[in-house]
Amino acid sequence: MAHNTHPAETERRILDSARRLFSEKGYEKTSIQDILNDLGLSKGGLYHHFKSKEAILDQLNADEWTATAHLLDELIDRNDLSALEKLRTLIISAVDAPAHLDLVRSQLALLKDPAFFTANMRFWSTGLPKSFRSLIDMGVQDGSIPTTYPEEAAQLLSLLGNYWLMPCFYPADRAGMEHRIRCLATMLDAISVPIFDETVILRAIKGLTALMPEEGTASA
Amino acid sequence: MAHNTHPAETERRILDSARRLFSEKGYEKTSIQDILNDLGLSKGGLYHHFKSKEAILDQLNADEWTATAHLLDELIDRNDLSALEKLRTLIISAVDAPAHLDLVRSQLALLKDPAFFTANMRFWSTGLPKSFRSLIDMGVQDGSIPTTYPEEAAQLLSLLGNYWLMPCFYPADRAGMEHRIRCLATMLDAISVPIFDETVILRAIKGLTALMPEEGTASA
Repeated sequence: MAHNTHPAETERRILDSARRLFSEKGYEKTSIQDILNDLGLSKGGLYHHFKSKEAILDQLNADEWTATAHLLDELIDRNDLSALEKLRTLIISAVDAPAHLDLVRSQLALLKDPAFFTANMRFWSTGLPKSFRSLIDMGVQDGSIPTTYPEEAAQLLSLLGNYWLMPCFYPADRAGMEHRIRCLATMLDAISVPIFDETVILRAIKGLTALMPEEGTASA
Repeated sequence: MAHNTHPAETERRILDSARRLFSEKGYEKTSIQDILNDLGLSKGGLYHHFKSKEAILDQLNADEWTATAHLLDELIDRNDLSALEKLRTLIISAVDAPAHLDLVRSQLALLKDPAFFTANMRFWSTGLPKSFRSLIDMGVQDGSIPTTYPEEAAQLLSLLGNYWLMPCFYPADRAGMEHRIRCLATMLDAISVPIFDETVILRAIKGLTALMPEEGTASA
């Protein structure tokens, strides 16, 4: 069934298939052959684009960050939202966007790999806070985020949002997850970073609950 | 000069020498030969006790946790301190005890190794919070730590104290370090875990500043 039109089209089909299979079967249990069968593609046709299964995941990650960076750029340019509302929109898209959650789910098994885990932690501690910092600084300017701890808030949003809130690292049931999110909301309020209003709290509970092992299996 | 008395005595001398050399020269730059030269010991005499430099560090780590566990047991048994005061005593011993800081400093280079880093993160997220939790629960009982977030506080004390506060992971100058510690104090106060009073804050600044790359070299 491989109607090979353009290389870019083939690459997109491989990525779409891989994202779906990683999400449905898990990264570890998905083989290159599964992707080939799904697409009716030859081995050579795939290896022309990606040298390994890990390279496919790397590209899905890169695409995801590109999408997040685009969303961030779009948000920064909008005049109808305060910086606080922009930050809330960004957080909601991270915790409750199906495509993003599928990607996170596909990474869960891989995060047990020390090299992959260490690289992610490094990005969460040094790279990602810069994106949060730019929005928080805008909030200090427009008065919607009147914190005296902009750098600390940027670091903690990235570290706690990507690590501490994740049920794969800190297991919890739904009630435990809600308790944890409300704890974070209270602490961020205390440093005048009131991102977690009731809407964001409920969206975060929904999104993070969907990442729990049982929930993930049940909904797949 | 190897006056070999008892095996236990030799092992203690190796560990004392290694702790001092790791602290002064750094773990990476300390060789087994340096330790042999320092003690006037033969290669066989050392390898009888430790099969590698990493095994020596592992034992220093194990001894350190044994010491912390002893301190925790002693604190739990004391009747003259509230649970809050016990927790403050534990925190101060972690951030401002020379022997502990020497050990942490000797680990800094090693924490760049993905396997060592991942193992430490796992202990900080799953093992260490249990120790904090026992003291926090006592504080909920005696009223000195009136939090509704005992598990969250235990997890965050462990994660933020061992990772976020560390200048090797999140570089900062002295003023930045003070700002970060005061941010953590404000957030913990907000969930009724008032561990960081002015005394603990000042001791934490002193201890963590001593772990900065420049400070560490200057004081060595």
